[in-house]
Amino acid sequence: MKVAFAQLNYTIGDFEGNSEKIITQILKSKEQGVDLVLFSELSVTGYYPHDLLEKKEFIQKAEDAVAVIAKSCEGIAALVGAPRINENERGKKLFNSAFFLADGKIQSVHNKTLLPTYDIFDEYRHFEPNRAFEVVEYKGEKIAVTICEDLWDEQPTANEFGKDKLYEVSPMEELVKLHPDFVVNLSASPFSYNQEGWRKNVLISKAKKYKVPILYCNQVGAQTELVFDGGSVYIDKNGEIVKELKYFEEDTLVVDTKNIGTKELQKKADYIEKIHDALVLGIRDYFGKMGFKQATLGLSGGIDSAVTVVLAVRALGAENVRVLLMPSKYSSDHSVEDARVLAENLGIQYDIVNIQSAVDEFEKTLAPLFKGTSPGVTEENIQARARGIYVMAISNKFGHILLNTTNKSECAVGYGTLYGDMNGGMAVLGDVYKMDVFKLSRFMNKDGEIIPENSIVKPPSAELRPDQKDTDSLPDYKDLDEMLFNYIELNKSPKEIAALGFEEEVVRRVIRMVNMNEYKRFQAAPIIRVSSKAFGFGRKMPLVARY
Amino acid sequence: MKVAFAQLNYTIGDFEGNSEKIITQILKSKEQGVDLVLFSELSVTGYYPHDLLEKKEFIQKAEDAVAVIAKSCEGIAALVGAPRINENERGKKLFNSAFFLADGKIQSVHNKTLLPTYDIFDEYRHFEPNRAFEVVEYKGEKIAVTICEDLWDEQPTANEFGKDKLYEVSPMEELVKLHPDFVVNLSASPFSYNQEGWRKNVLISKAKKYKVPILYCNQVGAQTELVFDGGSVYIDKNGEIVKELKYFEEDTLVVDTKNIGTKELQKKADYIEKIHDALVLGIRDYFGKMGFKQATLGLSGGIDSAVTVVLAVRALGAENVRVLLMPSKYSSDHSVEDARVLAENLGIQYDIVNIQSAVDEFEKTLAPLFKGTSPGVTEENIQARARGIYVMAISNKFGHILLNTTNKSECAVGYGTLYGDMNGGMAVLGDVYKMDVFKLSRFMNKDGEIIPENSIVKPPSAELRPDQKDTDSLPDYKDLDEMLFNYIELNKSPKEIAALGFEEEVVRRVIRMVNMNEYKRFQAAPIIRVSSKAFGFGRKMPLVARY
Repeated sequence: MKVAFAQLNYTIGDFEGNSEKIITQILKSKEQGVDLVLFSELSVTGYYPHDLLEKKEFIQKAEDAVAVIAKSCEGIAALVGAPRINENERGKKLFNSAFFLADGKIQSVHNKTLLPTYDIFDEYRHFEPNRAFEVVEYKGEKIAVTICEDLWDEQPTANEFGKDKLYEVSPMEELVKLHPDFVVNLSASPFSYNQEGWRKNVLISKAKKYKVPILYCNQVGAQTELVFDGGSVYIDKNGEIVKELKYFEEDTLVVDTKNIGTKELQKKADYIEKIHDALVLGIRDYFGKMGFKQATLGLSGGIDSAVTVVLAVRALGAENVRVLLMPSKYSSDHSVEDARVLAENLGIQYDIVNIQSAVDEFEKTLAPLFKGTSPGVTEENIQARARGIYVMAISNKFGHILLNTTNKSECAVGYGTLYGDMNGGMAVLGDVYKMDVFKLSRFMNKDGEIIPENSIVKPPSAELRPDQKDTDSLPDYKDLDEMLFNYIELNKSPKEIAALGFEEEVVRRVIRMVNMNEYKRFQAAPIIRVSSKAFGFGRKMPLVARY
Repeated sequence: MKVAFAQLNYTIGDFEGNSEKIITQILKSKEQGVDLVLFSELSVTGYYPHDLLEKKEFIQKAEDAVAVIAKSCEGIAALVGAPRINENERGKKLFNSAFFLADGKIQSVHNKTLLPTYDIFDEYRHFEPNRAFEVVEYKGEKIAVTICEDLWDEQPTANEFGKDKLYEVSPMEELVKLHPDFVVNLSASPFSYNQEGWRKNVLISKAKKYKVPILYCNQVGAQTELVFDGGSVYIDKNGEIVKELKYFEEDTLVVDTKNIGTKELQKKADYIEKIHDALVLGIRDYFGKMGFKQATLGLSGGIDSAVTVVLAVRALGAENVRVLLMPSKYSSDHSVEDARVLAENLGIQYDIVNIQSAVDEFEKTLAPLFKGTSPGVTEENIQARARGIYVMAISNKFGHILLNTTNKSECAVGYGTLYGDMNGGMAVLGDVYKMDVFKLSRFMNKDGEIIPENSIVKPPSAELRPDQKDTDSLPDYKDLDEMLFNYIELNKSPKEIAALGFEEEVVRRVIRMVNMNEYKRFQAAPIIRVSSKAFGFGRKMPLVARY
């Protein structure tokens, strides 16, 4: 059987656009003599629609779209993902389903069994789990249809506590009893750099264990915080990956399940390159799917804004990026010069606005109220917030979306000013630790200096008071990042982290900073997720709590 | 049997404080000859700990706390709520449990069966549902132990689409087979003014249907966005509410299940009074549990900031509230005067800072970049953001938490400036529609004018340009609020809303505003929830989507 993988990029709720994309692919595949086209999970709606699934209009539109797509399936079959109403008396109102379409109509519907609720997943909120298993019989072959998590056995909560637990049922155990010729998996699996191998290992182990080929078709493209990386694969019954589609791009591939041919794999990339590609796609899709073209940000001469602006230019083009250089009396000459050189290297529009006179005006008008107090954080925040006003003025006046440049280390410990440098429509580096920001800058400079060397090597500073350094109030980033990764991604306790070779007192101070700054992150811009645990809706902590 | 209801206010993660509260109540009840003390759901941890439940230290501390509390149960029994590790091979790692404590130790554990995942509830993320049912036998009585949602039959999603569905199982159906003498319910049920009667009706209908008394013990107190209103009740087997505890306050009551005595009910309050009390408690607990005392906000002379400051004074005391009056050249004389009179009526500290010179400085420094453009939203936002800097400066300098004054109507349609008047540690009125803000002001003035009449009767205006009125860009609030309530709380479609008597074009424009401003609400301050559908984590919409 000739099966086409359709690894496409959908927009949530864009039924017209998504259907057109799907139908175009079906018609093109038909010309290629394909028997079955495989799309990804919730392809008709885009993954994940969240509470739009509670709107009856939304469900009606999804149903209508599936009916239209079905009509295009003449002489060819397709498997598309969409929500479907649960007609039973009990349970949730919907199923997360795969529709098998052939002969111009819906032939059968297969519901998702395992509904993830960990990290960024929230499927049990809307969907009822499947408990009935059957295979599709088509052109003499038996096809087991699974949806994403259905291939998992263990609940991926390894970083919490206790032993990993099995899911309540194993869809694969049930389906193999029906002797399928192959298993298809409609997936929407987001990228995380530190779980790269894990997804493939699950697929490989399942193919091996059940001695059945698996055709895994993933969604590609970014949906606000989440970046779906594609990388769909055909795995033979020995657990060998024989075909692999592109990463971070739409891609299609036709395989003949009876004659699979030689290996066609993607070239291996370093994790920094993958983070780079994920962030570029994250920016590009955020803008493209919202209907925006242009970005703005403040260039400080530091590493974070430098890396952010290079990503923005790669995502949107130099002609669509405009920056502001906003020195104050505490800015070093170098900073402005480094920012200027970077802007010129990139060929982007830049303006210089000195913030000092506005800052002075605030301090002057506040002086009667502040009599008898000494300058401190308040005055530092006024500078950061004045810069926030300037970049938002450019954003409002010219329709450029402000990109936030906060990195994950800063975001974790609250090293940033709310309503100041935390402003932005999207936080590009909010899931990238400072040490990885440095690596990204080196990666960007690999074919010639784009980011001035000085921005990379100088000691990080917010430049909000004379001779300020980040290390005045924070541990070295190398240590800080390791503590943070162990606390946030790996959920380790202070004692366990100290045992890695840190002073327990320092560890406890860092963790206290993380916990105390929940209120700042609550109001932060959406963060492009590239790790297994980003700040945002995949990590919900109570704001008012003692811990 | 003498049972004590302990309707207490817990702090999330404060194991020491919560345990002490619980033990004190147990010892006091023992002196009163009580047989069993009934606490609320997850009383040991506070409801709801969210992803703190993923930390092994947190679970260990909860376990230790239950052990300590058990020791205090000599000659008396108690039912407390806490998480508990699921020792089975399959399923989630925890149960949401009620521990029956007597003779100094844990006698039995009863797990929650129905785990809500709608609106603000997210329990299936952490907990495995119970499927085994047994009663507690104690002093010759059989007690059926249920936890909150366990008393529900239908999934409360009436406002979505299709018919209401039953839950997968009915704990009550299972438990009545064991012939309990009464049912206890450990609850954590948050307040929402438009679902007031619904909760009681569910309890009443269950008591009637199964002819069994229900002892419902609710949590009280605010946990950031959620306000738990207490109102615990004893319902006899005829479905009659015989005893009712206080609302929005800690309260305890001892009942003799063999001799229940006369009716003792709370006096009925209007929904506006309830919202008022909920917001006061919301502010008080946010500050108290975070360890803050003082609040600040900008008083504009308008109704929203007026109502907010009165609530703040009632929650924190006049000595702990300090306001800024921040006129610009567009402020009417009346506005400053109205704000000043209000501050004096309340006896709070106020300062006047004219923002114009700072605004002028921004405009002057931006002039070269803005050449050839006309003043508009950008310049209006600069004013709002300059005010944002001033109030945050007071907040930073003196440690006052900034209260946000945005109402739900504005929040819905995006009528507010991000990083400007949307600033704040907590949005007091973010779940109160404008028409209800007016009603709150009348309620506050019922015993004499606190809020100047002029602030109530003048046409609402942001005063960001000459003669600006809210109605320049929005429908009348009466109409707007009705459209919004039907869209947000009732999830109706544009057509259904138009059928209530509005022009469909206006309805669609309003809904477009709601949908387009998801990005602003994403970065908004936490909102005290008083309705069945507040903006915040109970309403998750994709940010990038077409709908």
